[in-house]
Amino acid sequence: MTIELYDLAGADDALRFSPYCWRARLALAHKNLSCEAVPWRFTEKDHIAFSGQALVPVIRDDDKVVNDSWAIALYLDERYPDRPRLFEGPQALALTSLLRHWTERVLHPLLLKVIIPDVFKSLHEKDKAYFRESREKRFGVALEDFAVPSDIGIAELRRALAPLRAALEAQPFIAGKAPAFADYVVFGAFQWARTVSPLALVADDDPVGTWCERMLDLYGGLARNAMRRAA
Amino acid sequence: MTIELYDLAGADDALRFSPYCWRARLALAHKNLSCEAVPWRFTEKDHIAFSGQALVPVIRDDDKVVNDSWAIALYLDERYPDRPRLFEGPQALALTSLLRHWTERVLHPLLLKVIIPDVFKSLHEKDKAYFRESREKRFGVALEDFAVPSDIGIAELRRALAPLRAALEAQPFIAGKAPAFADYVVFGAFQWARTVSPLALVADDDPVGTWCERMLDLYGGLARNAMRRAA
Repeated sequence: MTIELYDLAGADDALRFSPYCWRARLALAHKNLSCEAVPWRFTEKDHIAFSGQALVPVIRDDDKVVNDSWAIALYLDERYPDRPRLFEGPQALALTSLLRHWTERVLHPLLLKVIIPDVFKSLHEKDKAYFRESREKRFGVALEDFAVPSDIGIAELRRALAPLRAALEAQPFIAGKAPAFADYVVFGAFQWARTVSPLALVADDDPVGTWCERMLDLYGGLARNAMRRAA
Repeated sequence: MTIELYDLAGADDALRFSPYCWRARLALAHKNLSCEAVPWRFTEKDHIAFSGQALVPVIRDDDKVVNDSWAIALYLDERYPDRPRLFEGPQALALTSLLRHWTERVLHPLLLKVIIPDVFKSLHEKDKAYFRESREKRFGVALEDFAVPSDIGIAELRRALAPLRAALEAQPFIAGKAPAFADYVVFGAFQWARTVSPLALVADDDPVGTWCERMLDLYGGLARNAMRRAA
């Protein structure tokens, strides 16, 4: 049974850049579940009305509908306990929750300040007004004023990666010897940047970059083979 | 068999404030192992020469000597596998390692900028010159210039606690329903501040503060009953 994943798409149907959708996509691959990633745009709220809310990722697994990347991960481990687990146990889950909040409150804003012009260019024409209005309301400033010069933003990002860098100097994955949902949560952010922007966010010899390369190789190069916006 | 813990002490033998020693102290309590916390000062390198290095915490468990709070935690789970575990498994350990790096690279510096005058006042007279010289070399500035006004430093600290706050809104401990080494790593920093400084670092209604209260209650109030420097 193939699971349907409603996945944010950009100007091109094949351009998939949502960090939250990438978490779900990689979680499904981790569980070795086949998935059809259905393109969806911000303004196609009616296409996912069946989920009772208006954001992706949404999965439909037979008659079960789940939205929100975190809830999807919990669902997959509960529904498919005999497939590779996304969380080793309750303690790993609690610690991944903390990491998720760090990702969303520290990493995402630092990245977005650098890549927001690229994110905007990646959107489907019909989503641009929605994106501008919703984000300008959220940030309290115009998109153009939210952005920072890339050299400044990248330097700030690299400083904030210090704890991640130190951990990845000693272990191949955030979750240890093998990747788990913790890795997908953080990597989703880097894949977001990679699919929309040509900027080199980490230095070549940065353990964070080496880890990204490992993540890109997983599941037959699932993330590596994803479409990137033509610069 | 009582385990000896060499524990940084201040002006008073009973004033114990090292964040790393608190990690070890709470880890021993978690394992329900009895411990004698021997007072030690920075300049008493000869007292721990048997450990082959010059920093605390050091534990002596029968004929086994272990230094470094992280190595001590790993040792305790390996040596006493049937007692409550500090790490649920390899994934929890890997994620706690990342949290440890966040604690040391983000949380400790932000705290220290606020409490460094209090830390200095807490030291034994014979340690003051050592502390000043070693820290000024590490920071590249005079202790007085490393410090920031407490209102500014506390505001910056509270902002950096956002991910921890969000996690603790949904779970009583960092490790989930029960405390584990992840909690001791972060709480060691708050206990460091609490033992030396009268400053209120988090707001009364902050989930981080509520969690600190829970941590202070553990093991018969082990951390709550610790001596605090008279302001």
